[in-house]
Amino acid sequence: MTFSRLLIETIYSKKNPVLVGLDPRFDWIPEAIRRNADPKNNEQVAEVFKEFCREIIDIVAPLVPAIKLQAAFFEQYGVHGMSTLHWLIHYIRIKKGLAVIFDGKRNDIGSTAEAYAAGILGEHSSWGADALTVSPYLGDDSLEPFVKTAVERNAGIFVLVKTSNPGGKMIQDLVVDGKTIYRRIAEYVQQLSLSTQARSERYGNIGAVVGATWSEQLAELRGVMPNTWFLVPGFGSQGGSAKDVAAAFDENGLGAIINNSRGILFAYRQEPFQSTFGETKWQQAVEAATIQMIEQLRAETPAGKLTNNNTK
Amino acid sequence: MTFSRLLIETIYSKKNPVLVGLDPRFDWIPEAIRRNADPKNNEQVAEVFKEFCREIIDIVAPLVPAIKLQAAFFEQYGVHGMSTLHWLIHYIRIKKGLAVIFDGKRNDIGSTAEAYAAGILGEHSSWGADALTVSPYLGDDSLEPFVKTAVERNAGIFVLVKTSNPGGKMIQDLVVDGKTIYRRIAEYVQQLSLSTQARSERYGNIGAVVGATWSEQLAELRGVMPNTWFLVPGFGSQGGSAKDVAAAFDENGLGAIINNSRGILFAYRQEPFQSTFGETKWQQAVEAATIQMIEQLRAETPAGKLTNNNTK
Repeated sequence: MTFSRLLIETIYSKKNPVLVGLDPRFDWIPEAIRRNADPKNNEQVAEVFKEFCREIIDIVAPLVPAIKLQAAFFEQYGVHGMSTLHWLIHYIRIKKGLAVIFDGKRNDIGSTAEAYAAGILGEHSSWGADALTVSPYLGDDSLEPFVKTAVERNAGIFVLVKTSNPGGKMIQDLVVDGKTIYRRIAEYVQQLSLSTQARSERYGNIGAVVGATWSEQLAELRGVMPNTWFLVPGFGSQGGSAKDVAAAFDENGLGAIINNSRGILFAYRQEPFQSTFGETKWQQAVEAATIQMIEQLRAETPAGKLTNNNTK
Repeated sequence: MTFSRLLIETIYSKKNPVLVGLDPRFDWIPEAIRRNADPKNNEQVAEVFKEFCREIIDIVAPLVPAIKLQAAFFEQYGVHGMSTLHWLIHYIRIKKGLAVIFDGKRNDIGSTAEAYAAGILGEHSSWGADALTVSPYLGDDSLEPFVKTAVERNAGIFVLVKTSNPGGKMIQDLVVDGKTIYRRIAEYVQQLSLSTQARSERYGNIGAVVGATWSEQLAELRGVMPNTWFLVPGFGSQGGSAKDVAAAFDENGLGAIINNSRGILFAYRQEPFQSTFGETKWQQAVEAATIQMIEQLRAETPAGKLTNNNTK
């Protein structure tokens, strides 16, 4: 099954486009799970991350179509952290059947790019992810090996186009011959996506990262990339609202997955969930925050149409 | 000791600026080391990589100042590969006293960028590298956490500016208001480097990646970044010659480290070393190729001046 088809099937089955991001931070993990673990002991922290993330996955798996793992938070704890990352990818994919995105923002050239793609993407790879985020600064010949390997393995790639952070404008918003850099990259990604489109599918297998914090650019880029999946970070804690991301979707409520990491993982630390649940009921806070986000997207974006579909 | 001072001391002690790149590829590793290892068994490949790279390190450590590890080739073999990467970093740093660069081209925003930097950089970090390569597409606020952590830990950062591959021009060579993107990034990197400059040091601790394949741009960028270390890939197998990289150095032969990966690791597969040594004497080929590169740089670049200095 192509990556695009996997996304469509998991999205239709859950009737929403929420992508839960696993960005574990030791200090914020509930005391009941941290217990006496030493924050300077990589093995202990990695065990805490495994337990915390496994509980999160168990709570959100019946609700959402896909999960994104932020590699940095695991890599920070060395080989033990990477071992937990590996375990979680397989748990999400094999035990829960959700789409798994490895958020590593990898990039390199030639055979090095191939090595990243070959190691991370596909069922029989070392890491076993369904998709990987990649950075485009090294240009077209650096993206091609990622695209080639992804397609060979029925996996996907999300290329950074317009990122959610304010500083992204430093390169991305520069204008060359009347056209921004992000738009140029978007046009290239759309070509890549078309070149990987399966027969009778609207979307190809090469996606774009476009921040929820830029609602106008989301609309512009949906126009530039009509056959490209969007991975939209920046919802919630970075300020993007459901209304802001509405333009990321097509008329059927497909074409975008909306990420929320801290707002779900650490919902117990934020209102209204802090008052209602608090740390002792952190699992209920995770569930409530996920359901709230699903409902907001259904109410204020074309993703509401997903509830009309039985399957497709 | 700052990262810049570490580079200066290791370069003066070896009297050359060669950076050996560890990019192990299973198929090219001599039969005597591969033996019966199964290329699909991550644990076995990771063991072969460890043995091969350890031998390389033993051969080149008396000759060169620094070693770069390409994370992709280790990550490709999962947790076992990462375990070998970790072992090698410590072996190079602790047992051999060379500078170690983690070539991961990492990039992300805010606390995620901090997590990468905190995990990879500095003696007490999980990975323990002296420096890390990073990609600038996400802009200034994505680079700041890397810079801050690097400086706090007496470590370094190399920002991709003008990469060695032809496709790099897709973004890097675009011209905005009469100035290329790579030059804009270079100006920003020079500011960062100045902001991290220790008293009485010419160079700061934030460096730039500039490919050996672009000799004109090397000269231009040396002018734009007078206080910035250059990490120069693309020597040898990608076509850069000693003459091509001459402009990367300052008048004392400092300011740049020149990387060679395949040309040293797999010298036994290339002429003239293939005929002279062949696979059975692959270690002698590694040594001869390293010495040849050192001599070429001494003969054709300002790095020849390093042999005049006793210490500094």
